[in-house]
Amino acid sequence: MSVADTPQMSIEAMNERIRRCAFNAWLGLEIVAAGAGEVEVRIPWRAEMGGSPDTGNAHGGVLAAIIDATSSYAVASGIGRIGATLDMRIDYHRGAKPGPLRALGRVLKAGKTIATADVDLFDAADTLVASGRVVFFVRPPAS
Amino acid sequence: MSVADTPQMSIEAMNERIRRCAFNAWLGLEIVAAGAGEVEVRIPWRAEMGGSPDTGNAHGGVLAAIIDATSSYAVASGIGRIGATLDMRIDYHRGAKPGPLRALGRVLKAGKTIATADVDLFDAADTLVASGRVVFFVRPPAS
Amino acid sequence: MSVADTPQMSIEAMNERIRRCAFNAWLGLEIVAAGAGEVEVRIPWRAEMGGSPDTGNAHGGVLAAIIDATSSYAVASGIGRIGATLDMRIDYHRGAKPGPLRALGRVLKAGKTIATADVDLFDAADTLVASGRVVFFVRPPAS
Amino acid sequence: MSVADTPQMSIEAMNERIRRCAFNAWLGLEIVAAGAGEVEVRIPWRAEMGGSPDTGNAHGGVLAAIIDATSSYAVASGIGRIGATLDMRIDYHRGAKPGPLRALGRVLKAGKTIATADVDLFDAADTLVASGRVVFFVRPPAS
Repeated sequence: MSVADTPQMSIEAMNERIRRCAFNAWLGLEIVAAGAGEVEVRIPWRAEMGGSPDTGNAHGGVLAAIIDATSSYAVASGIGRIGATLDMRIDYHRGAKPGPLRALGRVLKAGKTIATADVDLFDAADTLVASGRVVFFVRPPAS
Repeated sequence: MSVADTPQMSIEAMNERIRRCAFNAWLGLEIVAAGAGEVEVRIPWRAEMGGSPDTGNAHGGVLAAIIDATSSYAVASGIGRIGATLDMRIDYHRGAKPGPLRALGRVLKAGKTIATADVDLFDAADTLVASGRVVFFVRPPAS
Repeated sequence: MSVADTPQMSIEAMNERIRRCAFNAWLGLEIVAAGAGEVEVRIPWRAEMGGSPDTGNAHGGVLAAIIDATSSYAVASGIGRIGATLDMRIDYHRGAKPGPLRALGRVLKAGKTIATADVDLFDAADTLVASGRVVFFVRPPAS
Repeated sequence: MSVADTPQMSIEAMNERIRRCAFNAWLGLEIVAAGAGEVEVRIPWRAEMGGSPDTGNAHGGVLAAIIDATSSYAVASGIGRIGATLDMRIDYHRGAKPGPLRALGRVLKAGKTIATADVDLFDAADTLVASGRVVFFVRPPAS
């Protein structure tokens, strides 16, 4: 990545914050690459992530949580701080078989007040299983 | 509730299915009341549900997962079977302090192919913390 | 309606503003009832509103525009000013046959920064044809 | 574009259908380029498209309608027929000043039952003013 792509929050700082966030730590999220407004996240499988008792596929809510967290760090990598999530939209494209997941988050637009990020979520076979868009309030507190 | 309100899947059957779904079981979901197309769900707090390390409030992804599951059972209570989630929209209204949560799910429309359900999610102080709409594909397999 | 229900922008002021908004005027929107955070809107049919050449049903984009405008005035009736739309989600439930439409908008939550409103849209047979949720940025300019 | 990119409905057939759709004709939509699952649409300005009486910017509902129509033809270019819109999500990024608009639609995923398409909408200065995702039911009638 070029210098212009340097994330505004370091990968180390983001992963350290993830470990201090109880549910992100439970999910086992790890940011493995980042640029300015882009992150790649790896998520190991754990048995509690299962949804349907019929198929064993991942719970849609787990996928939503991964998309939520990934978008938050995509924004952090772009503006250097964590925003407040206003809303989120998730589309489910295909059942996610048990196994590690990979999420790619990218800021679509970061304004002074609102930032919007997109996330694509892939299963171990690199198939797109879900995608989402998340909107954040990012205005810093008046100083 | 009147007879017309009898759920198409019994509370016992829904709770039994929840216990067989790994992540719903982890969340500790329990359906405490149901009608035809309406469910009330109780969710105990567990420390791993925390989001922000600064506030300790619930992780937005946990709230999304609860809304996903609640909507699914609202549909089951209305049509007697579990649909496949197509997409979900979550709005976050306020930080959810650590503590038990309560979700109310209601089918807005159940057609032959698509069902749509709304969920409101309340914290222990009965404040609306998040709400969502979920769309399901519900066409039964051709016989 | 009780005194508490008095809209924060009068019906006359809202309809006057509608007539000064080119596309709302084209749509022929008329607010016929309002409370604090609630509006009822009537929309006459015009031939240009048609969508599918096969069925003649209303264009989904026309329904979206009506939902957008109705939500905006629901917020205005609740807080006394027009917000800036951040995002909108529309669900289409059924084809809307040619004929007058009726929209009911209601504020779900109005905070200091963000307001969220829901709209249900009915056709001439009073069938729910579409519904939506719209999120607004409503923080007033610093004075 | 490569042969693999040939749209499954010709540009001529799509534009002919647009002219037969009352509201799309009113909007003046014209598809100027297409591949398999991708369309570029030009939209001339007309005074009735104005929203805010304060700024004269385009009505958000007009932008939503353009996104709805563009996504529909992106799907048509990918699968050769028009689907039924299930739901739509629009994000507004910036006010759209009066002037011609340009929309780029792209199919994200086309399954046997559901197709999902993304649209980016640009103003005359090529600024992203709105974007959206639209979900379609595309299963062909049983024969």
